[in-house]
Amino acid sequence: MKKEDTGKSKFVYLRIAGIIEQHILDNTWRTGDKLPSLRTICSDYGVSQNTALSAYYHLESKMLIETRPQSGYYVRFAGTKTPQLPGISSPSTIASFGMSDRLVSKVYDNLGEGGHLPLALATPANELLPIAKLNKGLLLATRELQGSGVAYDKAEGNERLRRQIARRAFAMECSLSHHDIITTSGCLNALSYCLMSVTEKGDTVAMESPVSFGMLQLAEALGLKVLELPTDPGSGVDLNAFEGALKNEKVKASLLISNFNNPLGSCMPDENKRAAVQLAEKYNIPLVENDISGDVYFEQHRPKSCKTYDRSGIVLWCGSVSKTLAPGYRVGWVAPGKFKETILKMKLYHSISGTSITQETIAGFLESGRYESHLRKLRHTLHGNMLRYSGAIADYFPEGTKASRPQGGSVLWVELPAHIDTVDLYEKALTRNISFAPGKIFTLQNQYQSCMRLNYGLLWNEQTEAQLKALGELAKQ
Amino acid sequence: MKKEDTGKSKFVYLRIAGIIEQHILDNTWRTGDKLPSLRTICSDYGVSQNTALSAYYHLESKMLIETRPQSGYYVRFAGTKTPQLPGISSPSTIASFGMSDRLVSKVYDNLGEGGHLPLALATPANELLPIAKLNKGLLLATRELQGSGVAYDKAEGNERLRRQIARRAFAMECSLSHHDIITTSGCLNALSYCLMSVTEKGDTVAMESPVSFGMLQLAEALGLKVLELPTDPGSGVDLNAFEGALKNEKVKASLLISNFNNPLGSCMPDENKRAAVQLAEKYNIPLVENDISGDVYFEQHRPKSCKTYDRSGIVLWCGSVSKTLAPGYRVGWVAPGKFKETILKMKLYHSISGTSITQETIAGFLESGRYESHLRKLRHTLHGNMLRYSGAIADYFPEGTKASRPQGGSVLWVELPAHIDTVDLYEKALTRNISFAPGKIFTLQNQYQSCMRLNYGLLWNEQTEAQLKALGELAKQ
Repeated sequence: MKKEDTGKSKFVYLRIAGIIEQHILDNTWRTGDKLPSLRTICSDYGVSQNTALSAYYHLESKMLIETRPQSGYYVRFAGTKTPQLPGISSPSTIASFGMSDRLVSKVYDNLGEGGHLPLALATPANELLPIAKLNKGLLLATRELQGSGVAYDKAEGNERLRRQIARRAFAMECSLSHHDIITTSGCLNALSYCLMSVTEKGDTVAMESPVSFGMLQLAEALGLKVLELPTDPGSGVDLNAFEGALKNEKVKASLLISNFNNPLGSCMPDENKRAAVQLAEKYNIPLVENDISGDVYFEQHRPKSCKTYDRSGIVLWCGSVSKTLAPGYRVGWVAPGKFKETILKMKLYHSISGTSITQETIAGFLESGRYESHLRKLRHTLHGNMLRYSGAIADYFPEGTKASRPQGGSVLWVELPAHIDTVDLYEKALTRNISFAPGKIFTLQNQYQSCMRLNYGLLWNEQTEAQLKALGELAKQ
Repeated sequence: MKKEDTGKSKFVYLRIAGIIEQHILDNTWRTGDKLPSLRTICSDYGVSQNTALSAYYHLESKMLIETRPQSGYYVRFAGTKTPQLPGISSPSTIASFGMSDRLVSKVYDNLGEGGHLPLALATPANELLPIAKLNKGLLLATRELQGSGVAYDKAEGNERLRRQIARRAFAMECSLSHHDIITTSGCLNALSYCLMSVTEKGDTVAMESPVSFGMLQLAEALGLKVLELPTDPGSGVDLNAFEGALKNEKVKASLLISNFNNPLGSCMPDENKRAAVQLAEKYNIPLVENDISGDVYFEQHRPKSCKTYDRSGIVLWCGSVSKTLAPGYRVGWVAPGKFKETILKMKLYHSISGTSITQETIAGFLESGRYESHLRKLRHTLHGNMLRYSGAIADYFPEGTKASRPQGGSVLWVELPAHIDTVDLYEKALTRNISFAPGKIFTLQNQYQSCMRLNYGLLWNEQTEAQLKALGELAKQ
């Protein structure tokens, strides 16, 4: 597991925590080992008791260590108990049309009703969202927005929001102004306009494999074929395969979830992003980038986007606040590069305007810094959850189970031993009121039968652990 | 001009007002004539002074009469001064592709910024909208909706809202349950899903002519040809031409703005709606009905919809609150008949969900009766405005100018003498800070050069009258 890069942190407690974490990952201290006392740390590092306590508190919240009353701090997480990473995927090189079955609607028919869904979803649970603050923001927006948002918005979308998005893009060395950005009704709506603008019915679009079924459904709705690309659970799409796809004359666009891919959790390294953009430019094939989860990183810095390396306007960068703040607000955006005029027309002709009041609310949230402070908490919680899931999978799932190790986002990909069919398992799990997303819905081909996507975007509690345990036991049967 | 049908009203003052109105329209009393005194009415009709006063107050607010201090009530509006109705349109019978020019974006590039736009728009001005009550509703919705609307909504959309829409449909003898309705992000979004579901690129769709440029742009975005149909400013689409279109094998759908058509203001009589549906069934061509303005009627009852007569599910009935309450909320809906599964997939695949919080707010607004009470005021204001516009056109526009006489909605269609080019006029008007929608943008053909659409969905004041007067004078030059 890649450790959080706290070595260079400006906070002393984070530096100390980083050093201890590294030792745990290196097995210097193993699960169950007693760690140095607070007093030892104070004297070794010349810090106050509070600082030492903060370092341990940080590690505790990440589930790496635990306190035993009257005794001290012990290693809880074991590097050796992390499940192995799945290998790179190997989908067929033949593009496919449409969805194979009704499994998706079976899994998600109760969308919005809760119930047994948590492990199957891919958006953070309400408990992790700053609802009271958003409500205040909504009230404020009715006061600040002319006409309280009852009127149409500009075609490009809320200007305040677009300025904030441009500022955030700056942090990933991506030079955008608000003129380069168009707001949309969520990220899927942005992706829909992008694909409608750069493809026609019958064209082929290249995507990672496995890939979020939402992307496959969108392709289906537009009558597009999907060419699935081998994808590494760590570094994302295979660049050789990507270039091969772009050479195929039927491929008219690529769609990549560059950061914390859904369902893998993979993240393309900077150099791969740069190379992918260069290839897109070389073959003149638009690259639609779904960067919906990029803000939910577990390391020190936000990963860059493909857009960062875009010099010619070939990248259509899409994002939203649906994975971080408020899916139901339907606030998303696209920086469409040289396709701006087309996308603007698309938005205007299909929907006139986005919802004014929710855009203004999000604009205020970003502007005030409340978004960033919420993100800090969210990342911390999700990082801890990811580690807990990793541990639970190692503890409870069948021998040989592999799992991805996302460096961000809220989903991970589990590969059970080959003889286990996760569609069967899904049926069994449902009877125990447990749900998850079976691997088959993340491809148009006949693969990933023994895989599943799990959502860790929820409050970790005994029930979650019990569900994972029960799921593991069902899988063992 | 068709008079408001108050003869059968349960309110005595409305009955009396109706009788007087009829006499004015019949020229029993002419412009400038003194009307019977309050005392005369009290004694003739055996009513209280208050009732007589209410009758005159009602007629005054409709601009039909005026008070002269110390003197009495006088006829202000003159039936004979109403401009003549334009004739039925006669577009070419050859279908056309795409928009001819950049005129639309020229007129609407400042959308959302106000300025000189009022006469060019087609949504009610903020001053006519119950903004404070909507804000209260929004606050209430954050309390009533689980998670305050941060989560995705159900695929079909807010159930409370769908129940309310079904109830309103009942009033036009249209039997729908909430299961028959899917919410959308405004009416245009509904129309977009409908056309995407029942047509393919290259197909032809039959529409009224002139028709709202939004419909033409949507067709352009989907690569559809448009067959424009002769349309009467009073009774809407010509049924013979409609049948002719449905016989054309390239026509895969029709799209009709059945009630208070934009830009004509025409309203299909019940028997025409029934006949249109029968034809759609006979030729098995889906009828997409845009009923966005049906609630803004000036007579006693809401006009029926084509959906009222739909037995086979061939009508896709679309509506929204964008012409009545809050365009910027993006709350619309569709009752897609037998295309429900396709439309639901369309919505799910292109946008997952609508904005939760604005849907809930509108649901509450409808449920509490606040919508209906707002509509009563809005209809009254718009009816008065329409009469004022009619009078101003008769007074200030060139001899021979014709104008439609909408029985609802907020736009009317003006046909200036043939030698006047409204695109030239538009350029001149802009320099005076006056805008309107030139006729050419309501067709794909080379016609309506001397026509314009005017918006009367605003607060009538001296400035409005001055703008209309200035516009008329410019046209005379």
